[in-house]
Amino acid sequence: MSKGLQTFIQTNQPVIEQKLSTLIQEIHAPEKLKEAMVYSLQAGGKRIRPLYTLAVLEELNVISEDAAIVASTIEMIHTYSLIHDDLPAMDDDNLRRGKPTNHVVFGEALAILAGDGLLTLAFGIIARLPNLSADQKIELIERLSYAAGAEGMVGGQVLDILGEGKSLTLEELEQVHINKTGALLSFSILAGGIIANASEKIMKALQTYAFHIGLAFQIQDDILDIEGTSEQLGKTAGKDVLSEKNTYPSILTLIGAKEQLQKQYESAIIALEEVNMHQGILVEFADYITKRSN
Amino acid sequence: MSKGLQTFIQTNQPVIEQKLSTLIQEIHAPEKLKEAMVYSLQAGGKRIRPLYTLAVLEELNVISEDAAIVASTIEMIHTYSLIHDDLPAMDDDNLRRGKPTNHVVFGEALAILAGDGLLTLAFGIIARLPNLSADQKIELIERLSYAAGAEGMVGGQVLDILGEGKSLTLEELEQVHINKTGALLSFSILAGGIIANASEKIMKALQTYAFHIGLAFQIQDDILDIEGTSEQLGKTAGKDVLSEKNTYPSILTLIGAKEQLQKQYESAIIALEEVNMHQGILVEFADYITKRSN
Repeated sequence: MSKGLQTFIQTNQPVIEQKLSTLIQEIHAPEKLKEAMVYSLQAGGKRIRPLYTLAVLEELNVISEDAAIVASTIEMIHTYSLIHDDLPAMDDDNLRRGKPTNHVVFGEALAILAGDGLLTLAFGIIARLPNLSADQKIELIERLSYAAGAEGMVGGQVLDILGEGKSLTLEELEQVHINKTGALLSFSILAGGIIANASEKIMKALQTYAFHIGLAFQIQDDILDIEGTSEQLGKTAGKDVLSEKNTYPSILTLIGAKEQLQKQYESAIIALEEVNMHQGILVEFADYITKRSN
Repeated sequence: MSKGLQTFIQTNQPVIEQKLSTLIQEIHAPEKLKEAMVYSLQAGGKRIRPLYTLAVLEELNVISEDAAIVASTIEMIHTYSLIHDDLPAMDDDNLRRGKPTNHVVFGEALAILAGDGLLTLAFGIIARLPNLSADQKIELIERLSYAAGAEGMVGGQVLDILGEGKSLTLEELEQVHINKTGALLSFSILAGGIIANASEKIMKALQTYAFHIGLAFQIQDDILDIEGTSEQLGKTAGKDVLSEKNTYPSILTLIGAKEQLQKQYESAIIALEEVNMHQGILVEFADYITKRSN
């Protein structure tokens, strides 16, 4: 990771952690429910999505007090999706980042409701933002609903489940990932542009950049499952191969997957070049996403 | 039911059914997911919430093309909550309105995701409404998030679960219902006021009316469980007593519950009188809610 990005993360990660905690503590809800919501929010994680939102603002030289709040709502949505994905009826995972999953600690009913609560809260928080215009908030909510819902993340999860045990084509696999992880990651980047009131030209560049970064992120995930150690990853390495999951390496071979990763990375950078944003933090972020070891 | 309300429902129910179906068909999502979402949306039901939104507009003499859309999003949220409530980890119900529940037909994973999808979609649809102002949409979204989330419906469901097997006081029972069913029902009434750009005075009256109607609705539900037949109700009568559930009759006796129902009804009507809305459809609706037999 570059020095610049490292400093950026060291500065901004605590801001996100603080904001997440405050936003939950502020609500009037049963303590047990808040506890379950906070438990998974504070389970650690790289906070890539909220950091990306703030990075776009940094790149565009815009300061907004609402940015960290919007960034936090994206992490809420990401966290809700993990809670629901981990449920016995879904991936049935007992551990996430070395900690017992939400339903193991709080029971399935509360885990489902904590997820529902986080998802619902995210939209309310955006609606209540103190500084953005009503039009900006509406654009954020519209795009977030699209990215997180049946047309995005939820739809991708369904495609993933329906694809289990089948051999997918590269196009089908891409469709899963564009929806399942790409859509929300893309939104976190576009949200920065919306908050900054970026021009249409820059929004388009961010959209293209985000699309390729989303795929690059997933390809690197698949590669790490083969090349990383369980210790590096904080989860069992080699799980995809064992469970015969459809991955980029399983379809393209490991070398083919690395070529594909490089291709996505380059397309992302070209999008930045077109708007003269190819020397700042968004390039460093792209480097990090594609070269990370966990 | 009064002739006027009957005509109103006969006119507007098909509008809601049509709108719900169109709104789901329009989205680009995996067919199986859309099928699961539509299945529960079309499982029948009285459509009380969306009809209430439209009734407020009728009372205020305002016509808005967006009203039926907003009304439909409320039914989506209500339906998502039923799908999640019916899950094995929650109430474990196999039948709802005589039809197999969502997870029985589509499996638990898809049922969870269909619920998530409906909830997320509701906010996006409001954000995309063609005619309301951005400020009106923001107010709808803010209040809906509050009513449906951890501070409202989701929180009420948690209180309900935590209260199982305990003897609740009347205040505790009220707290469950104000959140679990009252909050969303109230929102459906207030939404009509927001769409109609109602004055602050009318909004306050609607809020008071909605609060008491929400409680009255639940009390009548509890009474029907004792006095109704399974055939009338479309579900097993007498279930509350058998499962030793906390209900108004269990705390207040049946006669006490009926007195409480009458009290809530009267408070609702008084709120309407204060703004001269005590001779129209909202009174008829209150009559129906408190005297219905299913």
